[in-house]
Amino acid sequence: MIFICEKQKLLEGISIVQKAITGKTTMPILEGIYINASNSNITLIGSDIDVSIETKVDADILEEGKVVIDAKIFGEIIRKLPNSDIKIETLENDTIQITCEKSVFNLGYMKADEFPELPQLNQDMKIEVPQNILKNMIKSTTFAIAQDETRPILQGVLFEVKDKSLNLIALDGYRLALKKEYLDSDIDIEVVIPGKTLNEVSKILEDVDQNVQITFTNNHILFNLDKTKIISRLLEGKFVNYRSLLPQEHKISITVKKQELQNGIERASLMAKDGNNNLIKLDIEDEVIILSSNSQLGKVREEVNINLQGDKIQIAFNSRYLLDVLKSLDDEEVILEMTSSVTPCIIKGKMADNYRYLVLPVRVVR
Amino acid sequence: MIFICEKQKLLEGISIVQKAITGKTTMPILEGIYINASNSNITLIGSDIDVSIETKVDADILEEGKVVIDAKIFGEIIRKLPNSDIKIETLENDTIQITCEKSVFNLGYMKADEFPELPQLNQDMKIEVPQNILKNMIKSTTFAIAQDETRPILQGVLFEVKDKSLNLIALDGYRLALKKEYLDSDIDIEVVIPGKTLNEVSKILEDVDQNVQITFTNNHILFNLDKTKIISRLLEGKFVNYRSLLPQEHKISITVKKQELQNGIERASLMAKDGNNNLIKLDIEDEVIILSSNSQLGKVREEVNINLQGDKIQIAFNSRYLLDVLKSLDDEEVILEMTSSVTPCIIKGKMADNYRYLVLPVRVVR
Repeated sequence: MIFICEKQKLLEGISIVQKAITGKTTMPILEGIYINASNSNITLIGSDIDVSIETKVDADILEEGKVVIDAKIFGEIIRKLPNSDIKIETLENDTIQITCEKSVFNLGYMKADEFPELPQLNQDMKIEVPQNILKNMIKSTTFAIAQDETRPILQGVLFEVKDKSLNLIALDGYRLALKKEYLDSDIDIEVVIPGKTLNEVSKILEDVDQNVQITFTNNHILFNLDKTKIISRLLEGKFVNYRSLLPQEHKISITVKKQELQNGIERASLMAKDGNNNLIKLDIEDEVIILSSNSQLGKVREEVNINLQGDKIQIAFNSRYLLDVLKSLDDEEVILEMTSSVTPCIIKGKMADNYRYLVLPVRVVR
Repeated sequence: MIFICEKQKLLEGISIVQKAITGKTTMPILEGIYINASNSNITLIGSDIDVSIETKVDADILEEGKVVIDAKIFGEIIRKLPNSDIKIETLENDTIQITCEKSVFNLGYMKADEFPELPQLNQDMKIEVPQNILKNMIKSTTFAIAQDETRPILQGVLFEVKDKSLNLIALDGYRLALKKEYLDSDIDIEVVIPGKTLNEVSKILEDVDQNVQITFTNNHILFNLDKTKIISRLLEGKFVNYRSLLPQEHKISITVKKQELQNGIERASLMAKDGNNNLIKLDIEDEVIILSSNSQLGKVREEVNINLQGDKIQIAFNSRYLLDVLKSLDDEEVILEMTSSVTPCIIKGKMADNYRYLVLPVRVVR
């Protein structure tokens, strides 16, 4: 194998495939980057079995071939080399030589045929979504996946394609996040994708309106970008019937400036730490929410102007659950819908209708 | 105590005095910030006994008084408050109330008279140095202080005022850093200041040519900036006679572009990790240094152009010691002076003559 490529392009490729390399594997070959030089480019693959990322880098191939090189040291070397052409060639004794201007590195490599093959995907069930929209949908939902491992299916995000829309849903027993976008497709499918995979996918997606192609199979999902492919296994099992969790009606509706509410809750939660489970109380009056909290540190009182439709109410929340929602929103105004102090609160946009968040209140003795 | 001040100014003051609050004390009062409201400003003090930092913040004092407030929670609250006027007042039951727009916090406070008093300094031995120059001198030397605690005096930096110059010297048995600046003073004194104090001082010093006033006593040093004072205890004991360590002559002189040498060593050191003590070898030829290193990871060879006066030589170093020096320098070209592969190497500027670094080579079997 002999090829020459630009340092910067190679480094970008390495950075992309390294996102799949967790270092938490018992298979040493998976600590490496698979490199295949053929035709007019090199193919890089990083994998931890659950997720594999493949990308292509333009290169001048002088001799075809493939190797696997330790990802960490390879990345460090390429990062430190000058911005110039890099030549990589295999030598005898299972070593490769990396040459760039006046630098010459010699490293051992692993055999490429020991690297696990990527799953072959049936290309039938396919949708397309702009990258920036999918990136935003992922950011808006993954925070709500379950952190504990007692119900593995809840560590994933439901991808639901139905009635010409793509819905992403995450929930953990205390809250739910739902984001919906129009989709020009008649496909009807639902799969559950591990949350940590989606977070890596969202780092690779760019803020552009170019499409990413998504292919579904029984066991895997493929995100196909221009030069990069991400393949993840799916979580097995049936997701919770989330529609049954969303209340059909409400008695109280509160319109509030999002940033003011967020700032108030952030401050109030300073006094809600230390053995207090982030508990903040909301006294909802006619034109104002009074936020309060107290712990051994002290106490706090915050006022936020609102527009109230319905009765006054006293209700309490884990402030982190409210903040996770508010921080993920760009809206100027949001609406909180409630019925009682022990039933779910819904947070939705005043203008946008493509998301719903549900947060359960905390029961407190007043 | 009642005062009103601007959020941003108060926050700046808190950030400054927090640098002295390490949280590693057994005295709870030292986890607090001392606040004294009198005349037209408030005085804030943070201290861990070894170092105390005092600063003043403009404020509208409605009622004089003093308290100590937990630094961590106080800092968090002030940071989160809106950019507006903040009112702080003591209430009954040893609590203070912090009010800002629609936010009201109540916190316990500690009694100010339990806070240790700052040492009183005799103001006789005094010098003045521009802030930016002192900041640079500290940055150029503190990296060379000893990390182990077997010789506590070497965990400090020698401040030597002598022959109309201020010299800062740090050394750890393997290397030495010396930085010198002209000083318009006839004082003759030397003290040793804990390295960690100096690092905090350098964070507070700004990149301006306004003077900082330095006052020496037997046990303490005072850095007096405009509104801020830093007082540190001194290390006891006699510093090493560093002059005797600096070689008086050399047989080999190498002129090299600093950045090229630094880049080459950074890359070569990638192969010098893992049980190899960062060992890199230098083959110094007529017009080039060949840097090389190898470990179980692989091997590397780098070439750097030089101008050599004297004989060729083979020598080896801990790459970290060379990199610490090179990273701290801004010079375009530096000079390396050597005599043999087992005697110290001196690094100095080609243009500037106000610093000297000494690095001991590592003996290797070729």
